[in-house]
Amino acid sequence: MSYIRGFASDNNSGVHPEVLQAIEKANVGHAVGYGGDDYTQLAVEKFKEVFGQQTDVFFVYNGTGANVVAIQALTNSFHSVICPETAHINVDECGAPEKHSGCKLLPVETKDGKLTIDALKKHMHGFGFEHHSQPKMISITQATELGTVYSIDEIKALADYAHANNMYLHMDGARLANAAVSLGCSFKEMTVDAGVDVLSFGGTKNGLMFGEAVLFFNQNTEAVKYIRKQTAQLNSKMRFTAAQFLAILTDDLWKRNASHSNKMAQKLAEELKSIEEIKITQSVDSNGVFAIVPEKIIEPLQKEFFFYMWDESKCEVRWMNSFDTQEEDIEKFVTLIKKLLKE
Amino acid sequence: MSYIRGFASDNNSGVHPEVLQAIEKANVGHAVGYGGDDYTQLAVEKFKEVFGQQTDVFFVYNGTGANVVAIQALTNSFHSVICPETAHINVDECGAPEKHSGCKLLPVETKDGKLTIDALKKHMHGFGFEHHSQPKMISITQATELGTVYSIDEIKALADYAHANNMYLHMDGARLANAAVSLGCSFKEMTVDAGVDVLSFGGTKNGLMFGEAVLFFNQNTEAVKYIRKQTAQLNSKMRFTAAQFLAILTDDLWKRNASHSNKMAQKLAEELKSIEEIKITQSVDSNGVFAIVPEKIIEPLQKEFFFYMWDESKCEVRWMNSFDTQEEDIEKFVTLIKKLLKE
Amino acid sequence: MSYIRGFASDNNSGVHPEVLQAIEKANVGHAVGYGGDDYTQLAVEKFKEVFGQQTDVFFVYNGTGANVVAIQALTNSFHSVICPETAHINVDECGAPEKHSGCKLLPVETKDGKLTIDALKKHMHGFGFEHHSQPKMISITQATELGTVYSIDEIKALADYAHANNMYLHMDGARLANAAVSLGCSFKEMTVDAGVDVLSFGGTKNGLMFGEAVLFFNQNTEAVKYIRKQTAQLNSKMRFTAAQFLAILTDDLWKRNASHSNKMAQKLAEELKSIEEIKITQSVDSNGVFAIVPEKIIEPLQKEFFFYMWDESKCEVRWMNSFDTQEEDIEKFVTLIKKLLKE
Amino acid sequence: MSYIRGFASDNNSGVHPEVLQAIEKANVGHAVGYGGDDYTQLAVEKFKEVFGQQTDVFFVYNGTGANVVAIQALTNSFHSVICPETAHINVDECGAPEKHSGCKLLPVETKDGKLTIDALKKHMHGFGFEHHSQPKMISITQATELGTVYSIDEIKALADYAHANNMYLHMDGARLANAAVSLGCSFKEMTVDAGVDVLSFGGTKNGLMFGEAVLFFNQNTEAVKYIRKQTAQLNSKMRFTAAQFLAILTDDLWKRNASHSNKMAQKLAEELKSIEEIKITQSVDSNGVFAIVPEKIIEPLQKEFFFYMWDESKCEVRWMNSFDTQEEDIEKFVTLIKKLLKE
Repeated sequence: MSYIRGFASDNNSGVHPEVLQAIEKANVGHAVGYGGDDYTQLAVEKFKEVFGQQTDVFFVYNGTGANVVAIQALTNSFHSVICPETAHINVDECGAPEKHSGCKLLPVETKDGKLTIDALKKHMHGFGFEHHSQPKMISITQATELGTVYSIDEIKALADYAHANNMYLHMDGARLANAAVSLGCSFKEMTVDAGVDVLSFGGTKNGLMFGEAVLFFNQNTEAVKYIRKQTAQLNSKMRFTAAQFLAILTDDLWKRNASHSNKMAQKLAEELKSIEEIKITQSVDSNGVFAIVPEKIIEPLQKEFFFYMWDESKCEVRWMNSFDTQEEDIEKFVTLIKKLLKE
Repeated sequence: MSYIRGFASDNNSGVHPEVLQAIEKANVGHAVGYGGDDYTQLAVEKFKEVFGQQTDVFFVYNGTGANVVAIQALTNSFHSVICPETAHINVDECGAPEKHSGCKLLPVETKDGKLTIDALKKHMHGFGFEHHSQPKMISITQATELGTVYSIDEIKALADYAHANNMYLHMDGARLANAAVSLGCSFKEMTVDAGVDVLSFGGTKNGLMFGEAVLFFNQNTEAVKYIRKQTAQLNSKMRFTAAQFLAILTDDLWKRNASHSNKMAQKLAEELKSIEEIKITQSVDSNGVFAIVPEKIIEPLQKEFFFYMWDESKCEVRWMNSFDTQEEDIEKFVTLIKKLLKE
Repeated sequence: MSYIRGFASDNNSGVHPEVLQAIEKANVGHAVGYGGDDYTQLAVEKFKEVFGQQTDVFFVYNGTGANVVAIQALTNSFHSVICPETAHINVDECGAPEKHSGCKLLPVETKDGKLTIDALKKHMHGFGFEHHSQPKMISITQATELGTVYSIDEIKALADYAHANNMYLHMDGARLANAAVSLGCSFKEMTVDAGVDVLSFGGTKNGLMFGEAVLFFNQNTEAVKYIRKQTAQLNSKMRFTAAQFLAILTDDLWKRNASHSNKMAQKLAEELKSIEEIKITQSVDSNGVFAIVPEKIIEPLQKEFFFYMWDESKCEVRWMNSFDTQEEDIEKFVTLIKKLLKE
Repeated sequence: MSYIRGFASDNNSGVHPEVLQAIEKANVGHAVGYGGDDYTQLAVEKFKEVFGQQTDVFFVYNGTGANVVAIQALTNSFHSVICPETAHINVDECGAPEKHSGCKLLPVETKDGKLTIDALKKHMHGFGFEHHSQPKMISITQATELGTVYSIDEIKALADYAHANNMYLHMDGARLANAAVSLGCSFKEMTVDAGVDVLSFGGTKNGLMFGEAVLFFNQNTEAVKYIRKQTAQLNSKMRFTAAQFLAILTDDLWKRNASHSNKMAQKLAEELKSIEEIKITQSVDSNGVFAIVPEKIIEPLQKEFFFYMWDESKCEVRWMNSFDTQEEDIEKFVTLIKKLLKE
């Protein structure tokens, strides 16, 4: 079995020990299935504490599941969803949003993965014109797929713009914890308080075995339980999803995990800055480092520490840090990079 | 928290200790995500050992996910799927099969949840007629939703009939282990050897935390990995799904679990037979007992041991036994029933 | 070219001369496309005159298009639609309703194609239960696919029942004109006044070249223009659809056409009654005659006058009468039948 | 009623007299429905004469219908379709392609509506990667939505590129006749001979009342008849669709119509060139003229001759010429423009 920690993805790490303990603790006796159990109730209450009482919580299996439940809940098939070209919903979900919702996705080119009102305006036309998919949702990722983070003001501006145009703001929060730590704010300040209407709250990349949550703020969510079920995202042994979320929302485990992985990204970036041949391409706001590296080192480096190319044409790589990344992992990695560069 | 073991569903039980240990053991270091890890490879090999090398294995999250991936893989949207009216795909998946595949479901009334060629023939017409959804798949559940079990010959007959009509045979095996124990046969004899083309192999009801597998026998499965991803059924930390399946396929854990729950159902049925006011309505072939009971005892009984009504109009209940059901649970339950009947 | 008038279907006849004249008359100059023209406005006004001002009218191409626009407009994908097993939406649209709406169709066996509350009640359960497609629409056909006609009271009862259960009543009116003539009532009495929520108003079988209309009564129809467009049912040269509807709604052409075809069906049935070997199987309420005939005459009869088998297993045939069916057609047809029976 | 001929769209014109005569001629007696009639057979044969015997023809109602049938026939839901950002399938079909096929559309920015291999390469990645919609089809419009025309060599290059990458080339030929006239080539040279796999053959903009055809070249089309029906694109009185296509394929009516409208566009462009304040923005290859005009004249001009804005932000307008556009229409139009400019 493979035991080496690397920088491929924050979902290559396993389960945080406190999360696993929570699962073990929940593994007693019988519990009503499909969310009718006590753990689910507690986890929902916990989320309401954190995000406010006007929050409705639906646990699902994974990020794609969360995103497509969120989109289906607030759109019709003749709507469109505006998102950065690099958005997970646009490039990493095999067309699930289009298939499940029938909607069109309207991609916007960005430099840093962050949508701006100016850039998205190119898609803001055709309202009321039946030939045209009607823009109904703006979707942003926090932290973005490029490791950058929206400020609260940037989120507020997008939310206000969306609402002024009778649209919703969706936030894909697969790495929401990393963003919150980066901004030094609470989950609430960055989401519901900033005007987000629906949030895909990420668990897996913060140390869960599996599990995400869709959070609706001040919405009519009567239909969502059916949408979740029909989307094959309803866990029968829900207590084990709920127990995991309880764990990361307890004693600030989410923050400890995200602080650590962000810090590791900072350290990695710091080390890389001293290497002339490597150019960091994005602001290191959360737990990812994007860099252009000499082509010759990529393959030998991947052999020791597997990772993904971000943009093959530019030799741009993505190096992700996780809750379990150790300083020594970074040191070994950087040492190897330096060695390969000299060869 | 609720610790009482009851008879509501075999998914109300938790995780079998050996499965949980396997998860814990797999929780070391980093592993390539989405199935590129060693555990997944081992689990796939294990499945090929059990079902034959012409088997392609795709792990998914839950039973609905397994069924809709199976249906999408072998049909077009203008096809129809013939199934018993009581099939899980027909009544318990909130229309997921229709939504995901576009297919029409053609229900067949049965007495015992088992499809027969005679009964399904009413739907075998309109071939080549473009106005009519084209029958392309027969779907059966083994063990059925009513606790009954198809004999190998019955499966063979349906498979032969399907193939003679250029159709596929799908088996929903949410409780496949219980059926195998009931028939005293191997998984292979009851599925691929009997002509099944695609199988939803159940894990959750056999002691897993979550996880099912879709097994294709002798099929072109090039498209399936995309279908699984687009259906939001691809687990990023796949090693934890795989490790669980490895656990139940090791040391015959699946068989120990299913033998036990079947035996408990037998015991429960045995005890109930001595009670005049209760009428068992289905053959107790696997781990479920269906019975008509006096209305007056239902509510007080549910207060102590929650369970679901099967057919409210007839006062028919469903009592499921699980891998962790204890003889004492049955004794307490039957004692309470007797007490309530006397009141 | 084939000039013989037969009894295969009321869509085998051509275009009524007055309808064709209306098309020719509309073929002058340029008109704004997609319904922005004067003919469309006039036709919509005409429909509002006939059905009341709370009517919203959407022209589409064909009956399947009308039905799927109607269903999509009033359901979500997790809903179900209850209909007779013989309904056009269930057996003659190649699964279009499921594909377009994602809904499940719940068929009800009937003797005469007419749904009753008693018969449909078997599907009225699982409300609020997320595992179950939620019944949201009852769909009836007037006149039915079996030539029978619902009384106004029967429609009212179904509408009241639907509304009491928070559901909609859809009427597939492919042969609405024949039903209105049969009942001697207005369109309005049989539809909006009886509680119908959405109507597929048939044109093609009443002498149009093509074209149907979806009529919503007292509904929010903001989304429908987008649904129609996305369903590929928006005609660019809409004036030619509209002109046809104007024609049949002028000088009671619809009624003249339907009266004639109904009368022809009566005549055909009358003639057939005198033939011992033939058994009429359904009440001849509109323009269709259903009969069980000796197998030996079917093939030779079809050679002269093509028609469709209704139920091959019973030698049941369907003979449809059209606006252009002539008494002499019937006489020739019956003469041939008698001749073939003697051979 | 509105009798003024304008420049809004080539679908604002009516039916060509020869087409209407063909309809009238076909309006005799009964004909088997849904394409089982003689006219349909003749029209199919005619298409095979024109495009070659390896052509399969499916008549549908409109352009969106043609495109979504074409896409569904050759893709799975996890595929993507690369097209110019300005493509009709991308901006004018209210998301129908995504809804019907489940596919993702990948838009490419162009200057003139014409796709180039260089420009589309940005989307040619992720093959075999299950997280990514798999590029399977390149879709081009001939003539384009901007009035430009691909050369045969440009089409061949795209077809070769598509095939080399295991993809299909779809051509949206809503204005195919105008392109053929523009290039001075046959339909066949520009389509099947150039490597096109599936063609949406336009009728409506060439003088039909309604009707388009989907032509597959050298493809397995077994499934298409079901797809067409399920997409609600199967006309019951098909003879009237077929008769129209027979008319435009007889005595080169298609060519006469397209030659005329192209010539009118040339004349309009010629006249406009002499007006300093107006800047023609696209090569006038077919029947459309795109121009930037002073804002002040737009509204008063639209009052007399309604037309659509192409790009409001730039004051860019689209003026389409039709088979029935007269020289005097252009003269009146240009005179009015000049007058308004002077005011």
